[in-house]
Amino acid sequence: MYVILVYDIGEKRVGKMLKHCRKYLNWIQNSVFEGEITEVKLKEMVGEAKRIMREDEDSLIIFKSRDERWLDKQVIGQERMSTDHFL
Amino acid sequence: MYVILVYDIGEKRVGKMLKHCRKYLNWIQNSVFEGEITEVKLKEMVGEAKRIMREDEDSLIIFKSRDERWLDKQVIGQERMSTDHFL
Repeated sequence: MYVILVYDIGEKRVGKMLKHCRKYLNWIQNSVFEGEITEVKLKEMVGEAKRIMREDEDSLIIFKSRDERWLDKQVIGQERMSTDHFL
Repeated sequence: MYVILVYDIGEKRVGKMLKHCRKYLNWIQNSVFEGEITEVKLKEMVGEAKRIMREDEDSLIIFKSRDERWLDKQVIGQERMSTDHFL
């Protein structure tokens, strides 16, 4: 399935979350990731994300589409290529 | 159509962009919006967004799904209700 992941994480935890999410998905904008992922890998990613974040403060939202073709993407301005290495 | 909008905007412009996007979509996370919108209204929103942002610095990404039913949404932690009024 194809997912879009967005997070709003406290400053103390955001570096760890970024490193974690980059193992599974492409980093396309400051706190936004997208990519193809299996149900098993998604569960694994979410499980670890829950250990990193504080659910009473932080926010993690995942949009799941069964197929990338059902999603059109329009980029205006810059798009971070996931090969970029600054935080 | 159903859209997810994410932006990464310079500090000087982000307040204006937030105000602008809230006229069209629901604000669900720090720089993330979602909602139903017509093609005409989307064009109008993007046109004005382009006037607000600096395309050489800022980033606006819009994911379009023809139907909200093709998107499952998973929220972990907090979700800003669009009635929240802090910036």
